[in-house]
Formats: sequence, C-alpha cells, structure tokens
Amino acid sequence: MIRLSGTPKEDGFYMPGEFEPHAGCLMIWPERPDNWRLGGKPAQKSYAKVAEAIADFEPVTMLVSEKQYQNARSMLQSRIRVVEMSNNDAWIRDYGPSFLLNKQGTMRGIDWRFNAWGGLLDGLYFPWEKDDQMAVKICELEEIDYYSLPDFILEGCSIHVDGEGTLVTTEECLLSEGRNGQLSKAAIEATLKDYFNVQKVIWLKHGFYLDETNGHVDNIFNFVAPGVAVLAWTDDKSDPQYAISRECLSILEREKDAKGRHIQVHKLVTPKQVHITQEESEGVEAINGTFPRQPGDRLAASYVNYYTADGAIIFPLFDDPMDDAAREVLASLYPDRQIVGMQAREILLGGGNIHCITQHIPKHQNPAR
Amino acid sequence: MIRLSGTPKEDGFYMPGEFEPHAGCLMIWPERPDNWRLGGKPAQKSYAKVAEAIADFEPVTMLVSEKQYQNARSMLQSRIRVVEMSNNDAWIRDYGPSFLLNKQGTMRGIDWRFNAWGGLLDGLYFPWEKDDQMAVKICELEEIDYYSLPDFILEGCSIHVDGEGTLVTTEECLLSEGRNGQLSKAAIEATLKDYFNVQKVIWLKHGFYLDETNGHVDNIFNFVAPGVAVLAWTDDKSDPQYAISRECLSILEREKDAKGRHIQVHKLVTPKQVHITQEESEGVEAINGTFPRQPGDRLAASYVNYYTADGAIIFPLFDDPMDDAAREVLASLYPDRQIVGMQAREILLGGGNIHCITQHIPKHQNPAR
Repeated sequence: MIRLSGTPKEDGFYMPGEFEPHAGCLMIWPERPDNWRLGGKPAQKSYAKVAEAIADFEPVTMLVSEKQYQNARSMLQSRIRVVEMSNNDAWIRDYGPSFLLNKQGTMRGIDWRFNAWGGLLDGLYFPWEKDDQMAVKICELEEIDYYSLPDFILEGCSIHVDGEGTLVTTEECLLSEGRNGQLSKAAIEATLKDYFNVQKVIWLKHGFYLDETNGHVDNIFNFVAPGVAVLAWTDDKSDPQYAISRECLSILEREKDAKGRHIQVHKLVTPKQVHITQEESEGVEAINGTFPRQPGDRLAASYVNYYTADGAIIFPLFDDPMDDAAREVLASLYPDRQIVGMQAREILLGGGNIHCITQHIPKHQNPAR
Repeated sequence: MIRLSGTPKEDGFYMPGEFEPHAGCLMIWPERPDNWRLGGKPAQKSYAKVAEAIADFEPVTMLVSEKQYQNARSMLQSRIRVVEMSNNDAWIRDYGPSFLLNKQGTMRGIDWRFNAWGGLLDGLYFPWEKDDQMAVKICELEEIDYYSLPDFILEGCSIHVDGEGTLVTTEECLLSEGRNGQLSKAAIEATLKDYFNVQKVIWLKHGFYLDETNGHVDNIFNFVAPGVAVLAWTDDKSDPQYAISRECLSILEREKDAKGRHIQVHKLVTPKQVHITQEESEGVEAINGTFPRQPGDRLAASYVNYYTADGAIIFPLFDDPMDDAAREVLASLYPDRQIVGMQAREILLGGGNIHCITQHIPKHQNPAR
C-alpha cells in the first residue's frame, strides 16, 4: 500500500463521524499481565463480550499476538475474525489508523506516532514500538493507502469529529509536554486541520478527572450527530469532576461548530466513584515503567466512553444506579439504535473503556488493487 | 470463521485447477538463517522479485514475521500488501490452506496437519508449530470457513489437481513413514477423495531425484489444463532422474483421468545438474535438527516448479542453456499467457522453487459475513 505525501486536506479526504455507516470494527486482544489482572483472563472475557455485542450489528476483527492466537480463537465466537498482529497492549482507538474518506467513498488512513501517552516523561509503559507500528499494519490489512507523520504524537481517543468540519479535543492532552511539547497550540491546531480536514477546532481545557491519558476527550465528550453531543456530568460539587464538567459545558455553550451552530449538549451523569480493590490490585504484576494499579485508586468511570455501532450503542455498565439513567439518555438520543449495556469494570481497570478498545471502519468502496 | 464438520465432498466443494481464474497470490517472507544463506538477504531479493512479477498480473499479499515486517515492507514495492503472520519458514504452498470452491463460487479452506516434511523421523527442521497454524490464520484472514483434519499430514506441493476430478501425487511422499505411516494407501486415497472431492487419484512412484521433501509432485509434474500436463525430463541415461521420469511417463501413459482421458504429456528437459558451492554452504548457519546445506550437494532443479498466474507463467531460470527450451515449451502450451522467467537459484538453495513459495487464491464470491 502507498505511503502518501501531501495532506488529506489537499487531497479531499476527511474523517467521517463515528455515527456514520460502518464496514466493521477492529479490536486488539488484551494480555499484558502488568496491566490486566490475573494474566488478562477477566479482561479477555469482557473484550470477547464486547466483540460479540458489536458483531450483532457489524463484522468484528480481533487482532491478536502470536502467543495468544489460539486462546483468543477458542474464547471468541466463530463469527469474530481473528488476525495475528503483534502489539504492546489493547487500545486500538489510540494507535490504529485514523480512517478517512473522500466524496467518492475511497478510504485512506493516517499513521500518527504513538508514545504510550507521554513517552519517557509520563507515558504508561515502555517500550511501545509494536503499538506504534500497528497503524501501518492495519492499513496494509485493509488494503488502503496512508499518510504517515514522522514526528507528531496523537491518539485516536484524544479527538472527536462531527464529520462536518468540527473537531473537539482537550488542551490537557494535546498540549501535554510528553506528546508534542515542542509545538505551539497554533501549530498543533494547524496539523489537526490539515490531516482531519476540519475548519474548526474546539479546545476543552481538561478531560475526565484522573484520566491517566492526560484527559482524552472520548471519556468526557462525544458527538451524537452534527450539532448534538453528550458530556460526562456530575452535580456533586465536592467531586473535582464537577468543576471540569462545568468548564467543558461553558466552553461548549460559548463556541460554535464549523457550520456556525451552537452544539446541543446532553448530560450523562457519572456513576458513583469507582476504586481499585485490594484483590484487583494484587492480580496485576508490578513492572518498573508500567503505570501501577494501587488499591484505592479512583478510576475514570464515564458512560460517555461508548461505541457507536451500525444500529446500536454499546455502552459501559458499572453496576450502579446511574446505569439506567445513562441508558435512558442514550435511548432518547439514539431512537433508531439499540442501546446495549456491557459490564465494563474489567476494561476500566486497565485504564480505558469500550470506546478506547474499539475502532470502527467507515463504510467505503475502494477501487480494486 | 467456522471450523466445519463433514467433508468437502459431502458439501459439494472441490479444488479448482491452478490455471483457473485467481483472486490473488499469497507468499511468506523468508528469513531463517539456518536455511537461507547470509541471513536470508539474497533469498529475500528473489522472493521480492517473484512477488513483483506476479503483481503485474494479480494482487500479491506477503505474510511476514513481526521481526521482519519493516525490512519486508521496505524491500517490497508498495503495491505488494504486507501482512504480519508468524511462521517457521517460507513455503506457503505446503502449509497454507487448500482452497476449495463450490458451484456458486463460495470459497472454503482445508487445514491439513504439517510436520516439516516428515516430523521427527525425517523432517527438515524443528519445531514447526507456527507453520502448522498458518492454514487457519490464512482462512481467518481471507474470511473463509474451513475443514480441519486433526491428524492427517499433507503438504500442498504434494498434490496437483485438474479441477475435473483428477488428483496426481507420488507414493514416495504420501506413503512416507514420517507422514501418515500408520495409514494404508487405500485409506490415504479415501481421504484425498473426500477432501479434494476427486474421483481419480493417479499415483506416480517417485518425485524428482534428491527432492528433500520425499518427492513432492509439483517439482516433477504439473497440469497445464484438464488432460494436458508437463513432466520433468532428461535424456541423460546416466542421471538417476532418467529412470524416475521414464517411470512417471509410463504410468501417465497407462492411466486415465477422471473423465476417462489419457493425459497428454509434454516434456520439460531439466537444466544441467546444480550443486551447492562452498561459498553458498558457508552462508548458512548450522543448527542441529535443520537439514544441512553441504558444498557439492545436488539440488532438485526443475522447470516444472512454476507458478500459473492469471495471464502469465512465472517459471524458474537456472542460468542454463535449457532455460530457453523451457520457455519455448511453456510458450507453446500457454499461448494466452505471458511467459516470465525469474532467476531462481537462491530459492532453490532453500529447498524448493517458485511453485512452492506461492499459493494462488481462486477467484470467488463469498456471501457477506
């Protein structure tokens, strides 16, 4: 497949919204015992269930390391396609390619650089070279050409687009020292505009409280449709999340999107605080250089971290009274989609949620090779 | 993808001839330094050239280990698709799936067992478990369901079919002790008939002289079309190959194919004998359990080991006066295909040739997942 020069903007390629039609969904099988407790077995069950839930609506491909191939193949339903691909961990939204379309429906990819959410400064594990190589490997797998940036760090969870010229991100993440610390905000915004082919970037200040990724936007904000969004929310003023959500809301109320609209914001109230238990912590291997999982640590539990499938919303459950409230909000926002809740604690324990572990492939029609 | 019960014969699936239309071609990137001299670099160049030659006629996918991925990607043209897959060596025809079609054009695969051409008895390397797992992984990659035999050893190079009910193989290989030594010839023939869905098996006695695979048929015989074949030949009575070729010819003259035809046999005269040089031998790492490459050893050089592409024949050159004669025979047999010769010494040094390192994918039209 061809490594392209130029930029998507020059070539007329843009990133469609996740709510637009899909060709399928990619995931990566979790296994590293220094991030997933008990050798990854509980997380593997959860990933398998998410894959099955999505496979009711669109084809799912699970990418799996050589060593885990046979285990994954036996734990997954036969309708899930299993393809070998080496990896450092299982966050495809972050280091899979950004998929783009042009007006003819041809798909291309972007291969950003990945440094484990902050490199040697405040990254979460080392090394990360296999993850960084996955975007190109996935473009080859999907038989699409790709743009490749030699030195710009970006994770897919750190941006959301409406497919109509607007991108939303957080300063906490994109301006973090461990990513593109040498670049100005203006330079970073220019790259976002050139590569996602958007006209407007809305900068939230912070992501979800204690999100270990320096505040990925996808744990606090998502587009339901152009001009319509959800925001993680709490009314508990003693929770540091309150000020963060309030700040996001005031920015969103002030800003207009690329089409000149004020974005209609719907609140998804967070569950009660979720903390790592002693038993959960003890199931994780302690490795120097890997972000530790300590008993009592608060996790960034948010209903906003859901997957928009063709015909369904796959959203996280926390065994909490707010689960039902979240379901109701989503049902009202997505009247034409099934609302499917999945127990997500084992995914959350690894540092993310359903949106982070999935990557949709836009529906496309590439010319034959 | 589904692991099927039953047999292809029961389900109406059969193996088409290689000369029928293709969807593309698969190869595996060579790297093991105990089989390929100089760390595999000369063989990698040859494999890349074969891939490029085939890519002029049909899409090519190169399967590559994690460690060699970036080297392969940089050595191959961008039109060659590169996909990660772990392996023990680079002989896809032997351990890739057998591809089958039904009358509706749906494709399925067969996953045979592989034991490195004879297991612990007279196999060529150890271990071989990654090769043995490739057939399933390729079926998953190609999104096809597959039959899987728990304990029947078979390599793709050891059979040829005419797509009209006839299979040709050798007793030397299929009745070898190191493969299915516990089974009778009748039991082996019954499995071939059930899985390739053929009505007639023609048993040659021996394969090419000194072929280290226990005489794979694809180095001595190939179908040009139903009822038409080529046979490796020599008129040099002092060469042990003479008696072998003579014996094959008399069997082929005596037998009839599944349609009741005598097969028309065309001779492809072998090049002068090819031997491993001192320098070539010294480039290979000596490892216990891997078949050695000694100076002076004769190689099984045969023009019959060619690839039939859509619109082309990719055949091996040995820098020999007979190269041109082989080209003329092939040109007369394939008037509608381009005849493309490729320098093949570096492939031959590894123990096979162009047909062994390629696997065509029949043209097919599977229903959407």
